[in-house]
Amino acid sequence: MSRPVAIIGGTGPQGSGLALRWARAGETVIIGSRDATRAEKMADSIRQRVSPQAQVSGLENAAACAAADLLMLTVPFEGQAELLKQLKPAIRAGSVLIDATVPLAASVGGRASRTLGVWQGSAAQQTAELVPKGVSVVAAFHNVSADVLNGDDDVDCDVLVCSDDPQATKVAMELAVKIPGVRAIDGGKLENARIVEQITALLVGLNIRHKGHGGVRITGLPEAAYQSRKR
Amino acid sequence: MSRPVAIIGGTGPQGSGLALRWARAGETVIIGSRDATRAEKMADSIRQRVSPQAQVSGLENAAACAAADLLMLTVPFEGQAELLKQLKPAIRAGSVLIDATVPLAASVGGRASRTLGVWQGSAAQQTAELVPKGVSVVAAFHNVSADVLNGDDDVDCDVLVCSDDPQATKVAMELAVKIPGVRAIDGGKLENARIVEQITALLVGLNIRHKGHGGVRITGLPEAAYQSRKR
Repeated sequence: MSRPVAIIGGTGPQGSGLALRWARAGETVIIGSRDATRAEKMADSIRQRVSPQAQVSGLENAAACAAADLLMLTVPFEGQAELLKQLKPAIRAGSVLIDATVPLAASVGGRASRTLGVWQGSAAQQTAELVPKGVSVVAAFHNVSADVLNGDDDVDCDVLVCSDDPQATKVAMELAVKIPGVRAIDGGKLENARIVEQITALLVGLNIRHKGHGGVRITGLPEAAYQSRKR
Repeated sequence: MSRPVAIIGGTGPQGSGLALRWARAGETVIIGSRDATRAEKMADSIRQRVSPQAQVSGLENAAACAAADLLMLTVPFEGQAELLKQLKPAIRAGSVLIDATVPLAASVGGRASRTLGVWQGSAAQQTAELVPKGVSVVAAFHNVSADVLNGDDDVDCDVLVCSDDPQATKVAMELAVKIPGVRAIDGGKLENARIVEQITALLVGLNIRHKGHGGVRITGLPEAAYQSRKR
């Protein structure tokens, strides 16, 4: 059985889309939610789409943290800090936490095509300040369209992975390439999440303007820079 | 004869690369530089690469501004504000000024993979504050690799064009698609330059890490959102 990934905020569009894709890839997925019943319902609905054998379960967020040492955080920015403070005792030492939070101005009633300034520089760096010592934070999966993830087509998007822990970067890149179409790129240090998070707001603006489901591809790097799915 | 484009700071790698590509496309190009002799030398060198008939000349920056109403600004961020103040009397009313400036931290001795905060939100918005009334500012061409522009291969990069003047956006998009391989995308308002400028710093970081000449492609928008060269 593969190392389980717990998706905190896994009933939202981004979290459930990632859960669907990872369940299809044979990963063991735990959907986390404030409400265990909602989490179980989402797990059921994903199993129905994937297969009755799909390894997907639902738990309350803290229980999900306690059940895995690979965590994927997909919550709106306005809930991020408070939730992390609540979950701190439940997060296991040595865990890898992948953060896809984008500090959209929509969090305070503004536009989803604009961002807020975060004191630490990025939502991911805020997360790094709030997790227990010894937990490695990775920023990734911000730019992957939730609509596309929740569909059946290949995902035409690169996932830029930023972390100060090379081993955690590797884990997140391996998870990224389980999604058909995705290429994972090592984006360097966690501080680079500042820019990767902003790209989501740009894509939101392009989606509104052009009525699409925008993603991003990085061109011009040597082949070795792109990790992709072994077929 | 086509409307001339004056490239302010046209002897640098980005400016000369754009000049080369536009000269090849049959555009009339004026290289601007602080030093008229350097501008003329760069114009000569581009004519030698393109053809003796290529419409490329060199002028001091202020004279270049006075000779065109389509201006392309490619100067390092540390010189941008001061130069615009100097050039203000020379910039013609009704001009379109395309700004490719990126506020890299390298401007103050920091890293080119990091950016500075600009009071107005972006380098392009700073420019908008400094040009004469009635001049339309467009942000574009930040993410196109200077190395690739100065070569002979197609440019594997989208150009996101941001402006508050739809007519100026159109002009910049037309200029962008003269570069083989480039697709132009309307990126909305000038304020979105905040994000487009940041992407350059991300690409610089990726180039250092992976030894490449990174560019960016936007995926997932409807065909109509992408303007490309008529062949």
